[in-house]
Amino acid sequence: MALTEADIQPQMTRRRPGQSALTTPRNEKDRVEIQSGTECGYTLGTPIAMIVRNEDQRPKDYGGSTMDLYPRPSHADYTYLEKYGVKASSGGGRSSARETIGRVAAGAIAEKYLKLAHNVEIVSFVSSVGNEHLFPPSAEHPSYSTNPEFLKMIETIDRETVDKFAPVRCPSTEASERMTKVIETFRDNQDSIGGTVMCVIRNVPIGLGEPAFDKLEAKLGHAMMSIPATKGFEIGSGFGGCEVPGSIHNDPFVAAPEVAENKAGAGIANKARLTTSSNNSGGIQGGISNGATIYFRTAFKPPATIGQAQTTTTYSLEEGVLEAKGRHDPCVVPRAVPIVEAMAALVVMDALMAQNAREASRSLLPPLPKGLPIKPETANGN
Amino acid sequence: MALTEADIQPQMTRRRPGQSALTTPRNEKDRVEIQSGTECGYTLGTPIAMIVRNEDQRPKDYGGSTMDLYPRPSHADYTYLEKYGVKASSGGGRSSARETIGRVAAGAIAEKYLKLAHNVEIVSFVSSVGNEHLFPPSAEHPSYSTNPEFLKMIETIDRETVDKFAPVRCPSTEASERMTKVIETFRDNQDSIGGTVMCVIRNVPIGLGEPAFDKLEAKLGHAMMSIPATKGFEIGSGFGGCEVPGSIHNDPFVAAPEVAENKAGAGIANKARLTTSSNNSGGIQGGISNGATIYFRTAFKPPATIGQAQTTTTYSLEEGVLEAKGRHDPCVVPRAVPIVEAMAALVVMDALMAQNAREASRSLLPPLPKGLPIKPETANGN
Amino acid sequence: MALTEADIQPQMTRRRPGQSALTTPRNEKDRVEIQSGTECGYTLGTPIAMIVRNEDQRPKDYGGSTMDLYPRPSHADYTYLEKYGVKASSGGGRSSARETIGRVAAGAIAEKYLKLAHNVEIVSFVSSVGNEHLFPPSAEHPSYSTNPEFLKMIETIDRETVDKFAPVRCPSTEASERMTKVIETFRDNQDSIGGTVMCVIRNVPIGLGEPAFDKLEAKLGHAMMSIPATKGFEIGSGFGGCEVPGSIHNDPFVAAPEVAENKAGAGIANKARLTTSSNNSGGIQGGISNGATIYFRTAFKPPATIGQAQTTTTYSLEEGVLEAKGRHDPCVVPRAVPIVEAMAALVVMDALMAQNAREASRSLLPPLPKGLPIKPETANGN
Amino acid sequence: MALTEADIQPQMTRRRPGQSALTTPRNEKDRVEIQSGTECGYTLGTPIAMIVRNEDQRPKDYGGSTMDLYPRPSHADYTYLEKYGVKASSGGGRSSARETIGRVAAGAIAEKYLKLAHNVEIVSFVSSVGNEHLFPPSAEHPSYSTNPEFLKMIETIDRETVDKFAPVRCPSTEASERMTKVIETFRDNQDSIGGTVMCVIRNVPIGLGEPAFDKLEAKLGHAMMSIPATKGFEIGSGFGGCEVPGSIHNDPFVAAPEVAENKAGAGIANKARLTTSSNNSGGIQGGISNGATIYFRTAFKPPATIGQAQTTTTYSLEEGVLEAKGRHDPCVVPRAVPIVEAMAALVVMDALMAQNAREASRSLLPPLPKGLPIKPETANGN
Repeated sequence: MALTEADIQPQMTRRRPGQSALTTPRNEKDRVEIQSGTECGYTLGTPIAMIVRNEDQRPKDYGGSTMDLYPRPSHADYTYLEKYGVKASSGGGRSSARETIGRVAAGAIAEKYLKLAHNVEIVSFVSSVGNEHLFPPSAEHPSYSTNPEFLKMIETIDRETVDKFAPVRCPSTEASERMTKVIETFRDNQDSIGGTVMCVIRNVPIGLGEPAFDKLEAKLGHAMMSIPATKGFEIGSGFGGCEVPGSIHNDPFVAAPEVAENKAGAGIANKARLTTSSNNSGGIQGGISNGATIYFRTAFKPPATIGQAQTTTTYSLEEGVLEAKGRHDPCVVPRAVPIVEAMAALVVMDALMAQNAREASRSLLPPLPKGLPIKPETANGN
Repeated sequence: MALTEADIQPQMTRRRPGQSALTTPRNEKDRVEIQSGTECGYTLGTPIAMIVRNEDQRPKDYGGSTMDLYPRPSHADYTYLEKYGVKASSGGGRSSARETIGRVAAGAIAEKYLKLAHNVEIVSFVSSVGNEHLFPPSAEHPSYSTNPEFLKMIETIDRETVDKFAPVRCPSTEASERMTKVIETFRDNQDSIGGTVMCVIRNVPIGLGEPAFDKLEAKLGHAMMSIPATKGFEIGSGFGGCEVPGSIHNDPFVAAPEVAENKAGAGIANKARLTTSSNNSGGIQGGISNGATIYFRTAFKPPATIGQAQTTTTYSLEEGVLEAKGRHDPCVVPRAVPIVEAMAALVVMDALMAQNAREASRSLLPPLPKGLPIKPETANGN
Repeated sequence: MALTEADIQPQMTRRRPGQSALTTPRNEKDRVEIQSGTECGYTLGTPIAMIVRNEDQRPKDYGGSTMDLYPRPSHADYTYLEKYGVKASSGGGRSSARETIGRVAAGAIAEKYLKLAHNVEIVSFVSSVGNEHLFPPSAEHPSYSTNPEFLKMIETIDRETVDKFAPVRCPSTEASERMTKVIETFRDNQDSIGGTVMCVIRNVPIGLGEPAFDKLEAKLGHAMMSIPATKGFEIGSGFGGCEVPGSIHNDPFVAAPEVAENKAGAGIANKARLTTSSNNSGGIQGGISNGATIYFRTAFKPPATIGQAQTTTTYSLEEGVLEAKGRHDPCVVPRAVPIVEAMAALVVMDALMAQNAREASRSLLPPLPKGLPIKPETANGN
Repeated sequence: MALTEADIQPQMTRRRPGQSALTTPRNEKDRVEIQSGTECGYTLGTPIAMIVRNEDQRPKDYGGSTMDLYPRPSHADYTYLEKYGVKASSGGGRSSARETIGRVAAGAIAEKYLKLAHNVEIVSFVSSVGNEHLFPPSAEHPSYSTNPEFLKMIETIDRETVDKFAPVRCPSTEASERMTKVIETFRDNQDSIGGTVMCVIRNVPIGLGEPAFDKLEAKLGHAMMSIPATKGFEIGSGFGGCEVPGSIHNDPFVAAPEVAENKAGAGIANKARLTTSSNNSGGIQGGISNGATIYFRTAFKPPATIGQAQTTTTYSLEEGVLEAKGRHDPCVVPRAVPIVEAMAALVVMDALMAQNAREASRSLLPPLPKGLPIKPETANGN
């Protein structure tokens, strides 16, 4: 596959700190360099190593007088010490959200493949900050999944549009302004606030995901809940969907519109024979993708490191007041957007390769006899 | 470890169908028999095989005239056919929720170990049905995680109490009545409704969970989202926590009360030196358990199979009306309670064994020198 | 895939005890029954469960007066007790070679696929018993890998031929007689003797196996060394190949003969452009199959359970004399033949599916530009 | 654990090229630098990254006129191209034995732990070059496993002694001279020759290894067969053991001598109650370590890259003559010694951690009742 740094850098840049007055002033260029696995701009099939060098690092911010004495509340300092028996001296070390830079780099490669081979499009955006929502739950629509406006948006939203609403990355002028105000208020109070990120994946081939423990939504949930600061995950109708009657929640089948064949070639067919007229399932049924747009939402808590003084207790069990230094985001969701996209790409890529193994293996078998309850293509050996 | 069917049967019985007028009338005894891996009532260390025989099976309910023609809306019929190329003739086959019986059996064994070795207590209960909540979100408490009543309940709730509130399994007379009414209404309309299950895990040792991709909440999320019909997962403050300011959401550290040593023996210490005065983190920080009570909530959609007529489309692309037969629950959350407990037990058991490998390996190394930033025990080789 | 018990039973029968006067008199029909995963004689894509019931079991042979007191020398009794802390009461329990029955059943399914899709042929035969060899090492041919007679045989040998030389399963009248005598002598002395099994795999597609830790020969070695009683594994020229000069050992490339396309369909091409004029590599170079016939040899020790009296020590540390009862083989290699074939099939199947995932994924990418050092097919997108 | 480059460098240096006139003249210092995972000379529990920079690289040797046209016979050039569809331009790329440098670095860390915690000693040495053996097979001893001299040597041999016999690393003046001559002859003929490496692991705790597919010898076999250029693996009596009668091959049990407790602490006990008076098993029975010294032998083929002209065929199917350039070893076994040790350390470390998880988990359970067939320690909860 053709691959150069130019395929990866854009997402690195979207993730990097110092993008606006709403994010940490820490300034990193986050230039990615490919170290191995490609030649002449093409992948060799062997492992791809990449490196991003830190430039604007100030360990003094962390190794100062107070932050060495206190485990930061709701941070990983205490649990890391308990788990490993010893702690790293500078900053959060490995528990820093800087860890996500590798996820974004890897995700960009998966994403390029998915785009080339299946025209898969992955787009995330901010769906809420504090209690300001893009699609607030209502009596009529306890979940956005029944809201026609939402369903329309997820079929067309793209990253360029999302980025026009920087720095918040919520694709609505009105909602974006509400959210900006919330973040500014918390920033000015040296406080922090949480939010949610919606992610949309279009053109996922049918049949991805495993039926029992590795359902596609379980793998997506795993991936999202592994991003630092996440507290929740929902797919399709989600928590709001619990309030929607089954008779409305069920997605009736309709014949799929004639679609042009995936022009890229053979492999897993993108074309469906059936599709659904609603999409409360979020594109996954029984753990397996059904060809409809996949969408899910991830909750991010308010960042733990805040400038406000906090009464807490030192490692030596003495109560005291911690005033955290360091340069931190008052709200992480705008920068979380490319991280969510990256993790989504990795999950879909894994599921695709697993299903490719099956499909390719099946394609070599003799056709099944007509009498069996099979899908039409299978009858002639594909 | 001592182990007989008597350790496993109670959870099987709590999960089985036909428990009340609110659940499917399908009647299964769900007797579990241990086939291998134990002798004289003790485990041998070798794999434990168990069998549960189906008794009240009526494939005719499924193989009837209409249900063979239609993929059931929001069920796995269509995606299974697309994934595997051929479909099983009777019922949902492997995508049936009957699959969860094996999870409950396995979970009961993990749970027995956790109880014996660390006094771990795992208790689930129904936290909402439709829009009836046990702890409804409010302006003061956008998340139950800041509600003192909730925090008090999770420290003491046990299964006996939960089961007193059968058939709904929501441990509050008042809320339980509200929820029963909702389920009855949907049942009588041949419709269905969703709900949420809260799960509480007490006495989890500190240090379980991996720092990056296999955070403890990621593994829990994976496990819960792999249960059929789940649409969402949240840990600690969850989605509501996005609306709580960081200054409130952070869990300050306080010196832990003197606790008696885990009387069961050595191994991973249950005792903490620090604990937190609030618990928005839900017992996990940076992906690693901090010794506080873990709690999380899982969303279950309204069951897909309903008696109401639904306009949908056959496998042969003809629109028509499906009236599903079969005996199904109008709301799955009461029966989901032991399934959630089982999956939680399996996740904690896995994480515990991984950490046991580390702790036991570390315990054989010479003590670290005093100058290092270490936890006190480590300095003398433990 | 079409699959019934008839596809599996033949290998079960070849493995079963009681086949001749040279094997254990224990008599088991070893009838296999498929429990799940197929309907109407076709696989559903879901897990296939099979069951084989024991019929001729005599636990009294094991639970007798002496065998409970002594860990049998060179058997797993002692290590199992030390590992698990408790021991099973009857026979070797899980360490019995009866465990291999599941391997043979699973292997037969893999094998059917490999045959249908790629015409893969897997044939094992006995290559030595004690010091009687089918191709004894010589000054001219320190390894059979340079012996033209050997190379000719591996291109044509089939199971029917091998079974004509029952009970020894060494496809040479003369060698077979030598080996039979050895086994009879050891049987009559209530002693036992070891031997080796050669395995040949023809028509393996090019490109299977991973470049570093999961080289195809490493996976084969792992699989073979996991069979009970194995003590050694060699691929291609093997240990004898250490004595062959590199100038002779190297396999020169020659243009491959025109081969008809694999008629079964698309997938991984069976056709090679280059082949080798010798085959000291045993069909694998750099961990990856090169399209030539794969062959490897596995050493089986003399069975540990013998009728002769042995001076050894009880669990209670008292020296004494053990006379083992039970019905055991004086030499396991004839019955090991189908077990080796089964494990080989499982390894190739796994490697094939992994490579299928890659090939299928690559086939969807745009063609690579002509200038790159690529294989011709890749240039037009295949 | 205390860890600096000084713990790792010695093995790197033993592996590095350019050590003597018998090895490749390519000259690399192979300085290892730790990049992450330690502070102040102690491990943090987080991943340890290390880097070794190439210094004496001459891609021109590879990218020359002929070596680009020809896939080198018995090298990975052809199979890599077929597997990945594109080839790296310089040298063997990833299939170069330079890949093993990472294995040696990782192994050195595992080894340090094993030494500190269990006094595990891992020592490899050259056991044959061509047909010159340290312990040649004989009628009396078809396998070295019955040779008292061999058994004595493996209890005491250490690396210092092995290195005294540099450059061949065969710990016998007489055998070493025979081997040196063989290598010199092949080097002078621009030819190459194979050999075998014996590896000895002392003080492995009892109980390591899994009973079925992941037997300890299967994991060791996998690891060894993953080293470039290996063609065979044998454990204990190995192939020669097939010729030893069961009555001699069986290892009788004897009461173990009183051993001092492992002074390092608790964990897996090193002490055995029983040991064996012979050791044809090679320290493993039923896939599980029995406390006796583990030993195994690995076969390395003659290096594929030789200076002699070879008639072979180009990628474009034209026959021609290849004279390989590049600087290569005439025999790899002397340099393979630390690689074998490294892979052995990694396998034992993995098995140890798996068993630690079990032992630590078991130690928290209540004692088993006296009536059961258990090992004495288990009765009181250990």
